This record gives sequence, C-alpha cells and structure tokens, in this order.
Amino acid sequence: MARGAVSYQLIKEDKNTGARLGLLRTPHGDFATPMFMPVGTQATVKTLTPEELYAMGSQVILCNTYHLFLRPGRELVKKAGGLHSFMNYSRGILTDSGGFQVFSLAPLRKITEEGVTFRSHIDGSKQFLSPEIATQVQEDLGSDIAMAFDECIPYPADYDYAKRSTERTLRWAERCLRSHSRLDQGIFGIVQGGMYPDLRRFSARETAALDFPGFGIGGLSVGESKEQMYETLALTTEVLPKDKPRYLMGVGTADHIVEAVNLGVDMMDCVFPTRVARNGTAMTRQGRLVVRNALYAEDFLPVEEGCSCYTCRNYSRAYIRHLFKAEETLALRLLTIHNLHFLLTLAAEIRQAIAEDKFAEYRRRFWENYGR
Amino acid sequence: MARGAVSYQLIKEDKNTGARLGLLRTPHGDFATPMFMPVGTQATVKTLTPEELYAMGSQVILCNTYHLFLRPGRELVKKAGGLHSFMNYSRGILTDSGGFQVFSLAPLRKITEEGVTFRSHIDGSKQFLSPEIATQVQEDLGSDIAMAFDECIPYPADYDYAKRSTERTLRWAERCLRSHSRLDQGIFGIVQGGMYPDLRRFSARETAALDFPGFGIGGLSVGESKEQMYETLALTTEVLPKDKPRYLMGVGTADHIVEAVNLGVDMMDCVFPTRVARNGTAMTRQGRLVVRNALYAEDFLPVEEGCSCYTCRNYSRAYIRHLFKAEETLALRLLTIHNLHFLLTLAAEIRQAIAEDKFAEYRRRFWENYGR
Repeated sequence: MARGAVSYQLIKEDKNTGARLGLLRTPHGDFATPMFMPVGTQATVKTLTPEELYAMGSQVILCNTYHLFLRPGRELVKKAGGLHSFMNYSRGILTDSGGFQVFSLAPLRKITEEGVTFRSHIDGSKQFLSPEIATQVQEDLGSDIAMAFDECIPYPADYDYAKRSTERTLRWAERCLRSHSRLDQGIFGIVQGGMYPDLRRFSARETAALDFPGFGIGGLSVGESKEQMYETLALTTEVLPKDKPRYLMGVGTADHIVEAVNLGVDMMDCVFPTRVARNGTAMTRQGRLVVRNALYAEDFLPVEEGCSCYTCRNYSRAYIRHLFKAEETLALRLLTIHNLHFLLTLAAEIRQAIAEDKFAEYRRRFWENYGR
Repeated sequence: MARGAVSYQLIKEDKNTGARLGLLRTPHGDFATPMFMPVGTQATVKTLTPEELYAMGSQVILCNTYHLFLRPGRELVKKAGGLHSFMNYSRGILTDSGGFQVFSLAPLRKITEEGVTFRSHIDGSKQFLSPEIATQVQEDLGSDIAMAFDECIPYPADYDYAKRSTERTLRWAERCLRSHSRLDQGIFGIVQGGMYPDLRRFSARETAALDFPGFGIGGLSVGESKEQMYETLALTTEVLPKDKPRYLMGVGTADHIVEAVNLGVDMMDCVFPTRVARNGTAMTRQGRLVVRNALYAEDFLPVEEGCSCYTCRNYSRAYIRHLFKAEETLALRLLTIHNLHFLLTLAAEIRQAIAEDKFAEYRRRFWENYGR
C-alpha cells in the first residue's frame, strides 16, 4: 500500500463532546473535517457542474465503483486519465468499493470466499468483483481514497451470519491492502459487525490493526432505530484510533451529521440531499419543505429564508414549483444546489463551532430548531 | 400603444449584401443586432440558469405565451412582478403571442373572427385567445417585446385560404395595437402571406403601415424549400421599412442565420439548438455531430475543437457520451451550452464582419466549411 498518500491531522478535540476538528490530506488537496461528501454516482453529482460544487464549498465527493465498473468501465476512465480528468473535478474524490451495491442485488448475486458474482442491473450480464478486482478498479478510476471491498450486513441479521460476514470482511480487507499498489491513492478499511457490540468492537479493533490510513464505518442507517445506530456508532469510534479519520458511510441528513460529529465522526456521505431534491423536497434548518406542494404555488419567498445559496438568492418557491410542474430540469438543479449547500454549510458551521469550543451549544441550538 | 418603449437604430448597412448592423433599445437594455434569441418556452431556457446565458452573450430570449398562459398562468407571473423577476432574467425578453401554438393544435381548435377556441394540451380544458386577450396576457407577462396575435399559415395552403388568413391577421394586428397599453413594452406586428409573392407584399406593406416599432416575419421554415423560403424572405424585407427591426420567427440553424442576415433580417429565434442538444446532437461549424454515437465512446477531444464554450473547455466527447448513456441531465446541459454558445458566437461574428465590411467574405467562408 502507498503509505502517506492520504493522511489525517487531528487539529482539535472538543472538550465537552466527541467532536473533532481535523485536516484530511489527499493528493488533490487538504480538506477540513468534519466534512459532508456529495455523491456523484456515475461520475457526476447529478444535475451540477464542478464549479457549482466548488462555489458551495464542496471538498471531497464520492463516486460509485459499482456503477462506473459497469458503465463506462474502468478502461475508459483510465484512458481519460482517471476520474478527476474525466469528470473535471479537481478536488478530492473518494470511491466506494462496489460492495454495498453488489450485495444489495440479492438474489441476483452469489457470495464465495473469493468474491461476489452478480448480474449487471443495466444489461443482465454476469459480472464478478473480488477484493483484488475492486481494488484494481479503484486504482484505474484514480480516486484519492479507495475503500476496501466489504459486505454491508443487512438489518436485522442473526448473530452467526453477522459474525461470519464480519470475519470475511476482515479477511477481504487484508487482501485489499495487499493488492493495493497505487502510490497517489489511499485505501480505507471498513468496520462492520452489524448491531452486535462485541462484533463491532472486534471489527473495529482488528481493522484498526491493519495499516489503513482511515476507516469507514459501514452497516449503519440500514433500518435500525436511531438509538441503536448512535449506540453502535459510539462504541465503534471509541475503539478506532484517534490519529486516523472515521468515515460514516451513507449517512447524511442534518440531524445524523450533527449527532455523528458529536460521536467523533469526521466524514459522511449520503444520496439523500440530491435524491430528495429531484423529488421536489428541500432540506432546511426546520426540517423538510416539499416545494412541489400546492401550498407554495403563490409563495414568493425563497426556499429557505436567510439561506445564502444561489437558489435562495435568486428564485422563489413559486417559480421552483412551476418548474417542477412543467417538468423542467432546472427545478432539480436548483433544489440540488440548495440541499447540498445546506449540508456543506452545516459542516462548515460545525467546524467553526468546534474551533471556538462551542459545538455542544451549536448542537443544542440545532435541535431547538430542527423539526419545528 | 406605448411609443418609444422599444426602438431600433440602424447603425450600418452592408455595401455588398442586405446585412444590417443595428441596436435594439428595450426597457431592459440595448442589444446588438443581428441577434439570435434562445428560447425559454416555460420561463426557463431548458437546463440553464440566466448566468450561464449571460456568460455566452445571450441578449434577448423568447418565452411562449401559450405555455405560460396555461401554466403557471398570467396572474401568477403578474404577481411575481413579471417574467424578468419570476425567472430571474435581467436582459431582454420577447414573448410570442400564442398564435403559432394555438393554430398548430388543429383539429383541437376553432377559429372565428373574434379569436381562437382551443383545448389545453395539459388538461384538455377549453380555452380562448383573441388579439385583445393575447395582448393583455403579454402585458401581464411583462416582456419587453410582445407580438401581435396572428395565424401562421401552414404549407402548402391554397391561395384563397392564404389570402383570407393574411387579411384576418392584418385586422387582428390592428386590434392588438389598439388594445395594447403597457408603457414599458413594445409590440411587433407580424407579416404573413404564405408563399404567395403578392400576399407577402400586401401583408408587409399593410402591416408596416401600422404603428408598430418592429415586425415579425412569420410563416417561413414551415416545410417549403430553402429556395422558396429565401425568395419569400427577400421580397418581404424589401418592402419593410429600414428604420425598424425585422424578426424572422422560428428560424435559427447556422445556415439559416447567415442567409437571413444576408437578406436583411435583424432578429431570429429557434428551439432547434436546445432541442437537438437534449437529443445528443451538437451543432458545429462543420455541421452536426451526434455525440451519443458509439464513434465517440473513446474520443477525448472536445465537442468542437477550437470552441471556447464552457463545455468544450472542460469536457470530452467521451464524457458527454457517457452522461447521455447513463441518462444524466448534465449531458443535456453541456450540449445546450455548446449549441447556444455556437449560435450566439456566430451572431457576434456576423456583427463584427458587418462592422468591418466583410460580411460577404464571412458568408463565403461559412459555406466553405459548413456541411463538410
């Protein structure tokens, strides 16, 4: 493995909470944590250009190995000079390993110790991913941070299944590490363990013992209660080393971000903000606002009063609702801008609060507003 | 009618051709002609923001009265403070009268001297537009330039039908003019006459005799041959006064723009560049390039070499093709940017050529490249 391509500098630990301020160093720049990572599944954050992402403070984005492996394929992206060049994004890019998508294809997939055979959702063709192949594909994609090939354990799962899966993910993590060779890329291990405290601790401890520069925390926000999620997260971050970044995978609503930071998480990603935007839902400090609703037909206020995003500075709820009714794609774009701006701004405020020893207060005020 | 809200200043007539350099003065600024006007049917130039349009030199855009009349409705746009405020476009806006769309709804419409009864394509509801109503709707929309309510004569049409229709359009033009009262808006009359030289001359002469600050030329590019179109256009611009702008309606491929300018046209609009962009076709100086084609799967050149648009500066044919295959809306946006930039740049080059007495040469060079 390439040592040093990606590293983490812990700048400050909050006195009263688990929150941490840090710096994630990557081949495409140093980025402030805690951070929210917009998702660009198919080598594009849906509807947006990179410049629009930069303007709202986007740092690292996530692209999906499963999707890019199938289309346009690793070879094409490699020929293009890697994802950064292909999609014109010059800041950090993290790729997942494809494991999450492949496992969710059940019953269209078969797991062995070697890897997973599955059928493409695009053309039904038979495909195979293993720890080695997933690692090589991510090397071809040229992300700054690759992720180890793992199984995201479904919820609920019985103890024996969770144990066998967690142990296999650990063996796969070692294989990923051994096969990884790209010098300008880091690869993160992934903690699993389901909702079983002993398996979580085992997975966190054993994965942390491997020479990864950072760790994903997988298998959360998969159907368990919020209490269960936060408890499991807390005992995971307790075990993980303080000098490496913790990335809570697939989690990213405002409330989850605030709570995850409180429990010591540094990185998060989620399709939620971009997906609900395309359905006509805006995320705000008070909760969700369904702009499509007839309620907003003659409402000339911005989506969220006081918001400084491009959308709120220039357009009314009535206009955006009109665009949705008229099936104009600008509607999707305007709400995507708002929702990502909202979460990226939230992350920036959180960093500021930690820097000023005010995160506990920030968190309290957040909850006073949220859901009202 | 509001005298002076919109006016035209003829800056220069080309010595060797019919080309004219001019300035169109509107309540939202003075704009250089000849100009191409991007189409924003439903109060949005599909996929783009106003800022993207400004960046490529967009001046006046066209919005469709028929569509906005049905959705979101004149009242809502009026409450929003008019189209400029509603859609956040600060430069010129021209609205058509709705006539073209309503007449194309046959057999779902009925024409009388009073106006046209038709059924909405959205919900099937019965609707009515007359010269007075179309004018009032455009006053509510608050465009800089409104258009008179006319019938676009289909092709082919027999002489008697064309004559009766042309005479009615003329009577309607007078009614539009009488009912128009908005002080910060101009209204253009529209020349019809089908492909019959005497009817065209009659329509041009009689419409020009009315107190309009500019004239649309309608009923061209409706199925006739190019020769017929250019002949009919030539005899129309011959009759129209030199001190008022001539707007060739619904025409706007590169070859048509060059030829129309050559025959004395000042303004054009067309959905073609934005529509074909969404189908994966780029417009270039050599003709069309279907980026969706497998031919471009591994082509890392820009859409058009030497093009300075945002898309060509930052993305490859291979990437844009990938976006189309993956059904990503950024694909539509990137090609829309390229195609509109292409026509707006073409218009800017034409103006420069006229200013330098080189339009004939520009036109010759254009044809040497085009279609190769």
